[in-house]
Amino acid sequence: MSINTIGWTIEKWVKFHQDSTPQESFNTLLSVLRTQKPAPADPAWISLTSEEQLLHQWDILQSKSHKEELPLYGVPIAVKDNIDVKNLPTTAACPSFAYTPTEDSTVVRLLKEAGAIVIGKTNLDQFATGLVGTRSPYGITPNSFSSKHVSGGSSAGSASVVARGIVPVSLGTDTAGSGRVPAGLNNLIGLKPTVGVFSTKGVVPACHSLDCVSIFSLTLEDAQLTFNIMAQPDFENDEYSRAMPLNPLQKFGPSQVNIAIPTKLEWFGEEENPKIFNKAIENLGKTGSNIVSIDFQPLLDLAKCLYEGPWVAERYTALKDFYATNPPVETLDPTVTTIVKGGAKFDAATAFTYEYKRQGILQKVRKALKGVDLLVVPTSPLNPTIAEVLAEPILINSRQGTWTNFVNLADMSALSIPAGFRPDGLPFGITLISEKFNDYALLEFANRFLKISFSNQRSLGATKTISSLGDELLPNIPKPDLKNSVKLAVVGAHLTGMELNWQLQKVNATLLSAPKTSKKYRLYALPTAGPIAKPGLRRVSEEIGSHIQLEVYSIPKEKFGDFIEMVPEPLGIGSVELETGEWVKSFICEEFGYTQQGTKDITEFGGWKSYIKSIESQASKKPF
Amino acid sequence: MSINTIGWTIEKWVKFHQDSTPQESFNTLLSVLRTQKPAPADPAWISLTSEEQLLHQWDILQSKSHKEELPLYGVPIAVKDNIDVKNLPTTAACPSFAYTPTEDSTVVRLLKEAGAIVIGKTNLDQFATGLVGTRSPYGITPNSFSSKHVSGGSSAGSASVVARGIVPVSLGTDTAGSGRVPAGLNNLIGLKPTVGVFSTKGVVPACHSLDCVSIFSLTLEDAQLTFNIMAQPDFENDEYSRAMPLNPLQKFGPSQVNIAIPTKLEWFGEEENPKIFNKAIENLGKTGSNIVSIDFQPLLDLAKCLYEGPWVAERYTALKDFYATNPPVETLDPTVTTIVKGGAKFDAATAFTYEYKRQGILQKVRKALKGVDLLVVPTSPLNPTIAEVLAEPILINSRQGTWTNFVNLADMSALSIPAGFRPDGLPFGITLISEKFNDYALLEFANRFLKISFSNQRSLGATKTISSLGDELLPNIPKPDLKNSVKLAVVGAHLTGMELNWQLQKVNATLLSAPKTSKKYRLYALPTAGPIAKPGLRRVSEEIGSHIQLEVYSIPKEKFGDFIEMVPEPLGIGSVELETGEWVKSFICEEFGYTQQGTKDITEFGGWKSYIKSIESQASKKPF
Repeated sequence: MSINTIGWTIEKWVKFHQDSTPQESFNTLLSVLRTQKPAPADPAWISLTSEEQLLHQWDILQSKSHKEELPLYGVPIAVKDNIDVKNLPTTAACPSFAYTPTEDSTVVRLLKEAGAIVIGKTNLDQFATGLVGTRSPYGITPNSFSSKHVSGGSSAGSASVVARGIVPVSLGTDTAGSGRVPAGLNNLIGLKPTVGVFSTKGVVPACHSLDCVSIFSLTLEDAQLTFNIMAQPDFENDEYSRAMPLNPLQKFGPSQVNIAIPTKLEWFGEEENPKIFNKAIENLGKTGSNIVSIDFQPLLDLAKCLYEGPWVAERYTALKDFYATNPPVETLDPTVTTIVKGGAKFDAATAFTYEYKRQGILQKVRKALKGVDLLVVPTSPLNPTIAEVLAEPILINSRQGTWTNFVNLADMSALSIPAGFRPDGLPFGITLISEKFNDYALLEFANRFLKISFSNQRSLGATKTISSLGDELLPNIPKPDLKNSVKLAVVGAHLTGMELNWQLQKVNATLLSAPKTSKKYRLYALPTAGPIAKPGLRRVSEEIGSHIQLEVYSIPKEKFGDFIEMVPEPLGIGSVELETGEWVKSFICEEFGYTQQGTKDITEFGGWKSYIKSIESQASKKPF
Repeated sequence: MSINTIGWTIEKWVKFHQDSTPQESFNTLLSVLRTQKPAPADPAWISLTSEEQLLHQWDILQSKSHKEELPLYGVPIAVKDNIDVKNLPTTAACPSFAYTPTEDSTVVRLLKEAGAIVIGKTNLDQFATGLVGTRSPYGITPNSFSSKHVSGGSSAGSASVVARGIVPVSLGTDTAGSGRVPAGLNNLIGLKPTVGVFSTKGVVPACHSLDCVSIFSLTLEDAQLTFNIMAQPDFENDEYSRAMPLNPLQKFGPSQVNIAIPTKLEWFGEEENPKIFNKAIENLGKTGSNIVSIDFQPLLDLAKCLYEGPWVAERYTALKDFYATNPPVETLDPTVTTIVKGGAKFDAATAFTYEYKRQGILQKVRKALKGVDLLVVPTSPLNPTIAEVLAEPILINSRQGTWTNFVNLADMSALSIPAGFRPDGLPFGITLISEKFNDYALLEFANRFLKISFSNQRSLGATKTISSLGDELLPNIPKPDLKNSVKLAVVGAHLTGMELNWQLQKVNATLLSAPKTSKKYRLYALPTAGPIAKPGLRRVSEEIGSHIQLEVYSIPKEKFGDFIEMVPEPLGIGSVELETGEWVKSFICEEFGYTQQGTKDITEFGGWKSYIKSIESQASKKPF
């Protein structure tokens, strides 16, 4: 008995486990593990969990109460081999560097606590230094679509095992593009969070001030779910840890989204990818967005700083003690060694000079991006073959980083998503980039783009599974922070689907419930002033009152001032008693409003929507 | 005819010019200038404006329309000699470094545009490297209270000329304490703004990532006024320029202010200053604040980073080309040269290692300071003599920076203020420190402290002028940003002096005006539910309505959500028509509220305050 789990998303895995006996579940995970082979047989895996370790993880999970409700209950995951997993060696793709951690990195701990099972550790460009996936003594990870092409790096193996559908989610890291480039080359979602939002405790540093853990997944939903689990502050353990805002942006808009694309795109002779990129821009237009092309030179200058400048000294800082031990040369990738040791040559004066330069560029970037919601760029310009990379290891690598290198230096969030396929069958990805902490909003916008681009028929990774159901996001993520929100009941044109609902979207509101008032209210259609009809709610005694249908939203406190400015007289924001006895903030109406001539008592309809429906059906009965 | 202008504040200068003929005004400025002598006669001045230049500045000022309304109309100022003033040499206290700028630094330009007249450039520890004021080939600037004691540094001259009352305001710089230590030692206000709030364009860099221009003044009001003029973004010219928030915090509280003081204070054998400090803590308590002592070790560790660590490489970066020219040794201060050249020894790897350390410490600091509004520390522990400093140039300097060094590394705002006098007549200062952008709130709190400490009898600088009028802050600074505020009319318990006015203070509201409603309202005293009586405003037709007295506040938009949570039923926030015809947001009342039993129509009183007064006077007539 062997179930084909290839291409299963998180939802499928969780559902399967919920519907199976623990023994069936464990056996299925075991069979996933048994079909895997570590490098050199499969260069994507540096090491695999032992069967004993798998059982151990499973037993811990089974000992938890309400385990079936965990969001990652029994979901197999893979972890890039520069991120600590307890009792599995961390090699960073350098055998002589290897150590076996006695505890999980923070991110792995969070995923395990959410129910995940680690299957193994994946191959990478040594010390996460590269965007190609060829710089590893454990072998070159081939692209999941073509054995002749690179998987991209540095998170080569993590992309490969997700693209092949072995696990639904894997962890990478991303300092200069290592979490995005392999996503683009393997038809995956590659989420590079805002710096500091995922803890880097237990991660081998590359450039510690810029390093991010990243997520690979087949679908947007899986990236969203995993992001939500991992986005936890870890101030005690990570100098760069930052908390997400209490009410992070969930959606760009609701008015037109402003997208900036580069005025000038350098393709290095590549001819197919520009066509797909142009098609993607066309599809972006179909989302109703406003697309402007801007000069990306300041951002490209920033990217140049990363490789010319002193940030490579961060890599050297992290590894100088290791190099000082004279590790066996066959355990070292020569390109990586040259790059990292190059970090020794910078003095502190130069480090500061480049930091000034960076800050100066960032002033320009902020100015250039005023009013822009997101940037859209190719994830990488090329789909290189292994042979091409081996022939030009530095040049190709550097070209691949054109649109990824600047992002962390500019403190931005980024999401690489599939954009289509070339005639040779290889995938091409684009990256959405926005301000820090817009990670959730990028996922939401990606959903709009993917729907239009693939008409619900997207193939997932290299699995040949056709589906885009998994790109629909989970509506309850992130949960609104009720402590820092105002609960507001709306009664009229702000209800879902009505003319003013956009005002709630504009202030990042979340629909919480659709309750009724207590039996102490009457509802009036006010005489129309302006194009939009509005009701007025009147509190009365119970004897003459009725229940009126409401919707209750949570509005981030800091946005409430923007909302109240849009409330016209005779309406106001007061309080309403719900059927449950709870009082929440609500639209109220001055007596002056519903005593004007032309006011109509519509209490009998029980709510504004029913009343509007009745008018509309009446209107449609009219012969003219 | 010579008017004694010693100790004049900005207000006095502006008033004088407004009341004088241009000729009288100019002659008075000229006589100030003529009584000054540059070093070596007066070591506080490195150079003075020529009479011709003075006339030139005056003529430019006279050519401006509405010049008399300028906030610094004709006010003489002094500028530390590492800040560019057009056509005056910038020496940074190093003759061989000198150059003559062809344009003003941004801060000097802003002050001149506001009406200021630059009198001269002041002495400093060479390249702003020191906290003593003895490290200058132009001579040692003595303390304004004692020729045997140091003025403190590095902004020694700027403190001296303000303390002696020659000019009301001068500019210093402050990287590690240079704007605070001399303020403390000369009985001045020393305002060290949030990093980036004042442009550093045209300032000789010390540690460019940390440098601030600072303000010396005799009074809080003058510091406030000058801060308000200088706090302008300069993104084009300064990499580190930052805009103040649209509605900056203006006041800590209104509930108890939480002050943290160090658990352990190191006084290096000094016995008088601790007594004054303890007295200051006692007076802080009298402001009604809650004082807790906390462990300052993380902040002291941060301070240590500044001098042990790679930040000195910033000084080296700024000066290495100059030192490479082999300047004449007599133009160099040997201590400064040793320190700055020491910056060459750091490599980039160490720079990054210290930056990680700093970020790690800052995580601890944020945790330790949760809930703390401000820190209070001695400005400097000692009042050293010149002889003591010359004997131990490094040691004494380092001790003086104990409570100043960490502030910019922690991205905080700070304000040094007088705390009292020692038996030997020398002054002692304390420093208030808070989060970035709390500069205005620090001034407001300092006003509360100075009132209590000096009972309106404070001596200003070393001028022997006794006054504290100038510590009263200008109520219209900073102006609320109306674009990012909600204009709210209040009608009842939120009015000035009433029980709920604190709710407006809590959300940083500013009183804009006290208008009346249009003649379309009636006012009701609602039946009291809870301890605080409230009125309800009802809109009616003009025939039966009346004008009701209101107050209109501006509330920062981002705070409105906090405010609305405090509004109970049957009240709400809607809109009201003012007598002028303007509509603003306002308290409104549900009909249900003013139709309850026990409601009283109080329209005839014309407003809530009049009604309350009438009740109170009635009550006082009762015999029991």
